[in-house]
Amino acid sequence: MSKSFTITILGSSSALPTSDRYPTAQVLSASERFFLIDCGEGTQRQLRVNKIRFTKIEHIFISHLHGDHCFGLIGLISTLGLLGRKAPLYIHSHSHLEKLLQPQLDYFCTDLPFQVVFDAFDPKQKTLIYEDKAIQVETIPLKHRIPTVGFLFKQKPEDRKLKKEFVFTHQPGIKDMVAIKNGGDYLNKDGVVMPNGEITLDPPKTLSYAFCTDTKYNENIIEQIKGVDVLYHEATFASDNAQLAKKTYHSTAEQAAQIATKAGAGKLLIGHFSSRYKNLTILLDEAKTVFPNTFLANEGNVIKVGE
Amino acid sequence: MSKSFTITILGSSSALPTSDRYPTAQVLSASERFFLIDCGEGTQRQLRVNKIRFTKIEHIFISHLHGDHCFGLIGLISTLGLLGRKAPLYIHSHSHLEKLLQPQLDYFCTDLPFQVVFDAFDPKQKTLIYEDKAIQVETIPLKHRIPTVGFLFKQKPEDRKLKKEFVFTHQPGIKDMVAIKNGGDYLNKDGVVMPNGEITLDPPKTLSYAFCTDTKYNENIIEQIKGVDVLYHEATFASDNAQLAKKTYHSTAEQAAQIATKAGAGKLLIGHFSSRYKNLTILLDEAKTVFPNTFLANEGNVIKVGE
Repeated sequence: MSKSFTITILGSSSALPTSDRYPTAQVLSASERFFLIDCGEGTQRQLRVNKIRFTKIEHIFISHLHGDHCFGLIGLISTLGLLGRKAPLYIHSHSHLEKLLQPQLDYFCTDLPFQVVFDAFDPKQKTLIYEDKAIQVETIPLKHRIPTVGFLFKQKPEDRKLKKEFVFTHQPGIKDMVAIKNGGDYLNKDGVVMPNGEITLDPPKTLSYAFCTDTKYNENIIEQIKGVDVLYHEATFASDNAQLAKKTYHSTAEQAAQIATKAGAGKLLIGHFSSRYKNLTILLDEAKTVFPNTFLANEGNVIKVGE
Repeated sequence: MSKSFTITILGSSSALPTSDRYPTAQVLSASERFFLIDCGEGTQRQLRVNKIRFTKIEHIFISHLHGDHCFGLIGLISTLGLLGRKAPLYIHSHSHLEKLLQPQLDYFCTDLPFQVVFDAFDPKQKTLIYEDKAIQVETIPLKHRIPTVGFLFKQKPEDRKLKKEFVFTHQPGIKDMVAIKNGGDYLNKDGVVMPNGEITLDPPKTLSYAFCTDTKYNENIIEQIKGVDVLYHEATFASDNAQLAKKTYHSTAEQAAQIATKAGAGKLLIGHFSSRYKNLTILLDEAKTVFPNTFLANEGNVIKVGE
């Protein structure tokens, strides 16, 4: 089994929040990293309610600069300052965010004890915006009324695992072990070549998560997200409002399910629900007709990717 | 009985919100006006939860420019725009707010269907900042780390009420009735002067509400709020943290109660609680020892002024 890879839903509403639903925000816990994805108003409260320690978050990814995806940033940063955070906080977004947020930080967050580092990307290009030894994050250009991207989070393959009995019997040196973990064969003390496949086990399957909101139906994203374990795709409307979805550059639940089907996703989460749907069954049923393994992304849900 | 004069508490926390407590915001419903006082993050949600119709609010009063008193403005305004509001929205505050908020409005709230009118006041001076035929609002200069004011909401006296039997018997003309309502006597058809006191009743007692946060202990406010029906005074700390209160320009619950006593307030509401107090009993008990008619201003509480 791979290391932890879970998504916690903090907000499921579209632009008009309701008393039950918060605007978009999610936390992805992947290989011991904590990534915040979008940050609508109330995100800091939702982090508390869901008992996620603020200080763990080092990177925030903002899909686009509509208020329901970023109005919670200033409050969250301000609170992190009051809590005495020291580590830099990285915000990956459209370049305009820095211009909008920096004057507020300068005024409201004087003496902030940590650095806010803005990392701007070009929303028109698929771009690798984050990478470490375990995880990488790419942008997914979407089609909305303003420049918008999704994010594809992918675990990197771990090294091959040495079989215990091989290590016990042959006691290879460190240099040899590194070579074997990377796929090399082993020349044992009797001069016999032991093929890698015989002395190692496959590493855990790598997991992936694609976050796609806000967007109209857009088949261009399918190639990039092919075979993703979990796809979050906005489903602002049901098909009863297909025309409105088209006009406002949003998707219906059916369209989200079509994308999931064509991409061969393992699981579909739908969210970004219009406030007109008090009961979300219509959206879930519509998506499940096309893609049975669909779930609503409701506040407080924790989804284990790969299970 | 006077017309409605009720306070709804939307947020009771100080700068660090908890999962139970929201940052400062209150709605005062007075003589059929709806005033929003401060607007911390999450105010729009709290308005929904408390079933207060957004569209009724025409005036917002901001005590000072710390984030926990104003970070909810941009989300609230944005939502009012999506709801199709047409009436102007007046924001009374320090002049810096316009400079901070306007660039955000220009970016996030394009095509806002109503006007946001900024009314700047000088926080150092007691100033009449709002007045109509039924209500007036004055600023109360406070002592905090940055320029801060409280607000004193006062009903204006209504006209004297004509006694029904007098009207029935003498059938005075409209001109005479206006004069009598304003305190005039009446010369009846027999040439006899009927004194105003015999033909009218006193109008309902006028009510008043003083909102004082954030501030250190400050006796300068007492004269202005003398005899107020309800005083909201911050009580960020209990006396166990009196030094911290002094250092951060906040008040203890005991100090809030001392102000209420010296001002002869009818009732004291305390709020703006530090997140360190999970249980607020210590704050309430401390204040009640000095001023027995003290209440906690918890989220969702509705206080009828004058009852």
